[in-house]
Amino acid sequence: MRDITVFSGTAHPELAEEICAHLGTPLHPVKVSRFANDALEVQLQANCRERDVFLIQPLVPPVQEHLVELLLMLDAARGASAARTTVVLPHYAYARSDKKDAPRISIGARLVADLMVAAGADRVLAMTLHSPQVHGFFSVPVDHLHALRELAAHFRQYDLSNTVVVSPDLGNAKEAAHFARLLGTGVAMGAKQRFSDDRVVISSVIGDVEGKDVIVLDDEIAKGSTVIELLDRLRERGVRSVRLACTHGLFSSGAVERLGALPEVAEIVCTNTVPPPPKPSDKLTVLSIAPALAEAMRRIHDGESVSALFSTS
Amino acid sequence: MRDITVFSGTAHPELAEEICAHLGTPLHPVKVSRFANDALEVQLQANCRERDVFLIQPLVPPVQEHLVELLLMLDAARGASAARTTVVLPHYAYARSDKKDAPRISIGARLVADLMVAAGADRVLAMTLHSPQVHGFFSVPVDHLHALRELAAHFRQYDLSNTVVVSPDLGNAKEAAHFARLLGTGVAMGAKQRFSDDRVVISSVIGDVEGKDVIVLDDEIAKGSTVIELLDRLRERGVRSVRLACTHGLFSSGAVERLGALPEVAEIVCTNTVPPPPKPSDKLTVLSIAPALAEAMRRIHDGESVSALFSTS
Amino acid sequence: MRDITVFSGTAHPELAEEICAHLGTPLHPVKVSRFANDALEVQLQANCRERDVFLIQPLVPPVQEHLVELLLMLDAARGASAARTTVVLPHYAYARSDKKDAPRISIGARLVADLMVAAGADRVLAMTLHSPQVHGFFSVPVDHLHALRELAAHFRQYDLSNTVVVSPDLGNAKEAAHFARLLGTGVAMGAKQRFSDDRVVISSVIGDVEGKDVIVLDDEIAKGSTVIELLDRLRERGVRSVRLACTHGLFSSGAVERLGALPEVAEIVCTNTVPPPPKPSDKLTVLSIAPALAEAMRRIHDGESVSALFSTS
Amino acid sequence: MRDITVFSGTAHPELAEEICAHLGTPLHPVKVSRFANDALEVQLQANCRERDVFLIQPLVPPVQEHLVELLLMLDAARGASAARTTVVLPHYAYARSDKKDAPRISIGARLVADLMVAAGADRVLAMTLHSPQVHGFFSVPVDHLHALRELAAHFRQYDLSNTVVVSPDLGNAKEAAHFARLLGTGVAMGAKQRFSDDRVVISSVIGDVEGKDVIVLDDEIAKGSTVIELLDRLRERGVRSVRLACTHGLFSSGAVERLGALPEVAEIVCTNTVPPPPKPSDKLTVLSIAPALAEAMRRIHDGESVSALFSTS
Amino acid sequence: MRDITVFSGTAHPELAEEICAHLGTPLHPVKVSRFANDALEVQLQANCRERDVFLIQPLVPPVQEHLVELLLMLDAARGASAARTTVVLPHYAYARSDKKDAPRISIGARLVADLMVAAGADRVLAMTLHSPQVHGFFSVPVDHLHALRELAAHFRQYDLSNTVVVSPDLGNAKEAAHFARLLGTGVAMGAKQRFSDDRVVISSVIGDVEGKDVIVLDDEIAKGSTVIELLDRLRERGVRSVRLACTHGLFSSGAVERLGALPEVAEIVCTNTVPPPPKPSDKLTVLSIAPALAEAMRRIHDGESVSALFSTS
Amino acid sequence: MRDITVFSGTAHPELAEEICAHLGTPLHPVKVSRFANDALEVQLQANCRERDVFLIQPLVPPVQEHLVELLLMLDAARGASAARTTVVLPHYAYARSDKKDAPRISIGARLVADLMVAAGADRVLAMTLHSPQVHGFFSVPVDHLHALRELAAHFRQYDLSNTVVVSPDLGNAKEAAHFARLLGTGVAMGAKQRFSDDRVVISSVIGDVEGKDVIVLDDEIAKGSTVIELLDRLRERGVRSVRLACTHGLFSSGAVERLGALPEVAEIVCTNTVPPPPKPSDKLTVLSIAPALAEAMRRIHDGESVSALFSTS
Repeated sequence: MRDITVFSGTAHPELAEEICAHLGTPLHPVKVSRFANDALEVQLQANCRERDVFLIQPLVPPVQEHLVELLLMLDAARGASAARTTVVLPHYAYARSDKKDAPRISIGARLVADLMVAAGADRVLAMTLHSPQVHGFFSVPVDHLHALRELAAHFRQYDLSNTVVVSPDLGNAKEAAHFARLLGTGVAMGAKQRFSDDRVVISSVIGDVEGKDVIVLDDEIAKGSTVIELLDRLRERGVRSVRLACTHGLFSSGAVERLGALPEVAEIVCTNTVPPPPKPSDKLTVLSIAPALAEAMRRIHDGESVSALFSTS
Repeated sequence: MRDITVFSGTAHPELAEEICAHLGTPLHPVKVSRFANDALEVQLQANCRERDVFLIQPLVPPVQEHLVELLLMLDAARGASAARTTVVLPHYAYARSDKKDAPRISIGARLVADLMVAAGADRVLAMTLHSPQVHGFFSVPVDHLHALRELAAHFRQYDLSNTVVVSPDLGNAKEAAHFARLLGTGVAMGAKQRFSDDRVVISSVIGDVEGKDVIVLDDEIAKGSTVIELLDRLRERGVRSVRLACTHGLFSSGAVERLGALPEVAEIVCTNTVPPPPKPSDKLTVLSIAPALAEAMRRIHDGESVSALFSTS
Repeated sequence: MRDITVFSGTAHPELAEEICAHLGTPLHPVKVSRFANDALEVQLQANCRERDVFLIQPLVPPVQEHLVELLLMLDAARGASAARTTVVLPHYAYARSDKKDAPRISIGARLVADLMVAAGADRVLAMTLHSPQVHGFFSVPVDHLHALRELAAHFRQYDLSNTVVVSPDLGNAKEAAHFARLLGTGVAMGAKQRFSDDRVVISSVIGDVEGKDVIVLDDEIAKGSTVIELLDRLRERGVRSVRLACTHGLFSSGAVERLGALPEVAEIVCTNTVPPPPKPSDKLTVLSIAPALAEAMRRIHDGESVSALFSTS
Repeated sequence: MRDITVFSGTAHPELAEEICAHLGTPLHPVKVSRFANDALEVQLQANCRERDVFLIQPLVPPVQEHLVELLLMLDAARGASAARTTVVLPHYAYARSDKKDAPRISIGARLVADLMVAAGADRVLAMTLHSPQVHGFFSVPVDHLHALRELAAHFRQYDLSNTVVVSPDLGNAKEAAHFARLLGTGVAMGAKQRFSDDRVVISSVIGDVEGKDVIVLDDEIAKGSTVIELLDRLRERGVRSVRLACTHGLFSSGAVERLGALPEVAEIVCTNTVPPPPKPSDKLTVLSIAPALAEAMRRIHDGESVSALFSTS
Repeated sequence: MRDITVFSGTAHPELAEEICAHLGTPLHPVKVSRFANDALEVQLQANCRERDVFLIQPLVPPVQEHLVELLLMLDAARGASAARTTVVLPHYAYARSDKKDAPRISIGARLVADLMVAAGADRVLAMTLHSPQVHGFFSVPVDHLHALRELAAHFRQYDLSNTVVVSPDLGNAKEAAHFARLLGTGVAMGAKQRFSDDRVVISSVIGDVEGKDVIVLDDEIAKGSTVIELLDRLRERGVRSVRLACTHGLFSSGAVERLGALPEVAEIVCTNTVPPPPKPSDKLTVLSIAPALAEAMRRIHDGESVSALFSTS
Repeated sequence: MRDITVFSGTAHPELAEEICAHLGTPLHPVKVSRFANDALEVQLQANCRERDVFLIQPLVPPVQEHLVELLLMLDAARGASAARTTVVLPHYAYARSDKKDAPRISIGARLVADLMVAAGADRVLAMTLHSPQVHGFFSVPVDHLHALRELAAHFRQYDLSNTVVVSPDLGNAKEAAHFARLLGTGVAMGAKQRFSDDRVVISSVIGDVEGKDVIVLDDEIAKGSTVIELLDRLRERGVRSVRLACTHGLFSSGAVERLGALPEVAEIVCTNTVPPPPKPSDKLTVLSIAPALAEAMRRIHDGESVSALFSTS
């Protein structure tokens, strides 16, 4: 069988190292050069011919740098005669641009999917896409893992008898309900109104939260504005305690410090799909999804069923 | 400018006639022949050369017949040198297959979008797609209209001071919240658990509905199983009255009679994106979206902004 | 080597079972669900990853249902990471739409070939296409088998010294001449004039048929109108006996009964590329092409020459 | 409307001049340079931007030179921003390679169609393709004219009461029957067996020819071997006289002299889709299809129906 | 005719304003939003339907930001039904990655060309590409302007009788020879050896430069390392004076100050294809190519020949 | 592993035989038939199913014949289910058409690259392309070998202490400098002005050549006009001796005799990428690149690095 050959871009080499350790395969270096005029050039530093190549690159800030770097890596792998190239995309920032909710806007989630295929992607391994429909934006096979299994395992250590899972907005409500079923708890959700990317108002919380231990679940937390709005509403509704959970803990603009400073927040839980914040809070717990990604990669390489393993229902 | 030339498949000629009356343009006939071996052949009965061709065909039952007929019409228009061919798709049945929620299933919403483009579609005019992400499944421009404006105009005739809009499931919650904002009412939603296509259990209703006049909003009602489940829950929660609203009133298997027979159902409102049920109930009100589609087609033909007109926010 | 993995759609499971028995490989089930709105969803019930997948589906009535089902199966196989997907198409109903003999008509044979490729077909195994040019409509490799070998083996049991092969129309004349060469007989043909799909007039028979034992050969018999017209002409020309032979015995609208009731018809011979008629006539002989298809599939899988085996010249 | 802009390759400039005279539009020059290493370079000598460009080039010997020249002209027109480029293809030599009748052979008719589209062809205007299915090999719109109308007009000057149209082989039989209907005569045909490109045996003539005035109809006559074989058979069958008719009078290897020298051949009729033979025989009549091609080009440019005009049925 | 509609990305709005002033058409705004997770979203702020859209965006630092922004603008224009979208690319940074001079590297110039087409570019207007072959990397029509005309007009004001044009390396030698012909001077060139992007050694100068007034010509000057190396060699060879000329004056890392500080450098001349350096030197002259780009855009829109105007030979 | 299966077109079967001898694999025959109308048909004479097919065909005169033959071979290999098809292209005549240096011309190097891919090429093995950018014209992986290694090995047998490498024009200057570095000599170059394909004037030689032993290096020599012009200039500059070196020794129009007759020409060295001239001169030395191509093919087949081996730097 063709060998597995793994490369990492510059976005999150620690995760790539951890995945390769689980796979027992070396992580091959990539040389990224920057011309004096700021254009990038990529050189894969190991033979790709007829190999089963995996390129690991979450689209984390600076997103555009990491995206173009990934596209160049794909082009290099194709030109170097890779038998198959799989993009391992632990975080797909552009998944949030999944619909045309204003005239004449870009649908970035579809465009970037098309760009990856144009650059040579044969398949994609993604994690916790913002909406499940984003799967259908790709014209190549996608294996879509969820971190809910890892998150649920973590929270099961607690007494959940008085707990309710709360989604910050209606769009994430199905995911929250799914998580609640896994934990055997109730579910509630904020009714969010987004006036712009920065100004978010959560007008109300729908469902029963008074006196409850709340687990707020979102797919990603970046600036944390939405969560902070939600916490205001939850405080008004008299919740007992709050734990925050997400797959993609981007925590930009000091979000982890800001959230950690709130007294009712007992814990912030995320995974390492993205690099951890530079100054982690005491309240922050980072779960590793490297074992899950490594196992999925092994199954993709060996032609075994991926869905069989990672089912959470 | 190139002339507008409109054809209708066999799915819903009444709607096509009504649209053409609004446009003041003739509806050209299509000859659909069935070979003895059951294969179809389509002949467009008017010159298409350099014309701006519109093909009107909602994907209503029998869906597969109407889909293949539409694909053949697209092929015929391309072969006949149409300058541009727009599919007018008032109902897109396959939009419900928008994600991969089980291993090795088809994603029909993406596949059928690709088939239309492969057959020659240059653009699509759709109405109330099951989820807004389906827009991104098309690789050609889509104008996506919503019937919420028409539905809201209808309900504003009533006293809405004690009213709440209820979505049957969490996936439609954002749409219901949008509708509630248009009407100035509150919002609630069922937490649905789908065990199979036929067995649906709504375990709970999230939000405040006791003593309320309820408007149940969904994108489509087919067999009505979900709605009936929801009505059971609403009855338990002591609602005062119920009105049902949807864009696509398919009402298969005698659904309109079954729903109309429930005493708490005061009214069933839908639009004519699909043909009306053969035996309409007294409680059924069908609103016409022909004026909206005709105006959108006129604007597409004339190069005017479509979004400008149909904004509901 | 990658395993062979065979699925059958709902069009002709008996043929698929028979093929798999010859191959000594299991026939894997396909779950076809119908949504309440009549849209279909397909789930392949066995792992496809890196497998050599074959999808068996003749396009028999209801053709549109079976075609869309096949396209969804292709989409599911692609999404499930099949290494290669071959459509086994024992009967291709749309092959009859192979030219543009009227303005603004669809060329279904080319369109449906393109649709299969758009849905993910990597190759096609077809049988007795209506015209040999249809091969060129596919942009993927096609293995095109003929049932003439099986039909000839059957007729060689008879005394053929006074026999002539007759083609019902000129378009099939080359095929009939080929079959006549295989049997060592003469050839004649009807000059057919098609006024519409239903009204066919055979104005004359060209060639020597008086007092002969006739074998009428066509690629498919559906309603049988053409054959009945031909039999009128042959009767006028004083033929001694008639046997009917075709690859695809569709026999719609009770054709087999109607043809079997004619006294001069001694026998009707077809193959099982399509399901047999519900009420078979005593005069009907159905030959199995399952061994041929199974052997071709084995050779495709093993990379052996298919043409080498099935040459009839 | 965008201007019509016509260029001719080097294959048949006389025809292009005649077409342009009918259109009342200038024929623009093309500069074809040959590098010292035998590669060609093409320069279109008139502005193409946003023009409706027509490139006239029958694929006559040397076919490969003319084909590559045409592909380079298409590339130049695309690069020069033509609004639309139509290939006017009065003779498509590769149409004869329309099926796979031996293992591992090329299907030139499909390949060359794809090459033209890859090089930038937006549409094709063809004449008397070898088989009507070749139309379906093109993925762009094709207008397919027949010269039967011109040929029939010529033969109607004669007394046709004792005439029969004879096709040299079964593959052309439908076309011959169509022509016979236009002339009101009977039809017959040779049963040809091709052992190789050079050795052709017509084993028999099917149909009534004794004592008849025969019109032999073929799509093209090149070396004339098939026709000479047929004439041997017709002589044996005691025909009274013979006239030869074809659309594409290639007459390679002195065929026109050889055929003209046969005493029973009263006349050889072809059209000017290809350049006339260098030494024309007294018996040769060349009909011009320039008016038909010019009218079709005018209609394509003006968006009028082409099929309406050229129907022969 | 369809209206011209011009948008500018954030890379160089001043140039876009100047171009629009020449065209007498408004520059329409583009709203670029950055999500909290660093993904971009673009909204074109004017109706694009059936318009002739031009997007102005030189790929200047930060190149990756500007590239992705451009791709999103292309996607938005396509989704908004632009009739045609032309990328105006005054500087194409990736043009330098035009060959595979090491194993397993990306060829960025081809990849980025393909990405633009995948995102919806119908044509490109470029200026002074690094090598003329880059033109052929695009699968859509390219108009390729050169700034040599503007540069030559500037230098003709001087006495050029003792002048020689010097190319810093052999790859640019043909361009320098072309420029020398325009000015009527001699030509010489450095033989450069590039050890890495940062370490450049010019081992020798080929040609006659002693006592000459030198004009150093390059397509772009970024860090200026090459030029400084060349100046060392020219000083050793005893040149009389030096003027520097380039199309793309990127002047990164304070290059303009560093070069301006060299006593033998009398003048630095570039164009405004890229934004001017923040602290311009007294020795810097910036020529405007806005009139040339505006005239080319006008001609593209009106379907007039672009090559006719801008020929420099 | 899939077997390697090698075919040769008619362009240079001797080279193909030599390559296969090195590989120890048989050269399979190809049957090329020419129809009476001059169209070609190709039949590959060995099973290709799932094989790793290599098609050897340099594009030498008659270029158009050999190109179309190659495209038909590609089509046949695809239709015959080759697992992968590699074009071995020792000489790519169209590489010289690599830029648009005049309005409305074809860019043959890009077009022919696209045609090969359209016909089914999965990868290309090329040698000494006219410019390195031509690599980027292909949308499939290219292995690009250079014959400089072979040429350098030959010239190292001489005393090179007084030698300078001279490029006939500036476009080839980088290649000449590379060759000079390999030999440890200086470099000079002609400044060529091309007025048309036939009239070339070398106005001057840049660099130091007086009293030197000159090696003139070009990628190909066809008519030799450029070289003869250069020799005039070198004679004026008083060179001591001249040797001519090129990869592709086309020597059309008796060039090898003409060049060999010049007294100062001591030797003409080329490789066998193209067939040798019919009457070779005594001064001609032909080096074989068959070992290099065979080794590259072996490595491509075995998935080993090709670049690793053939590096000349």
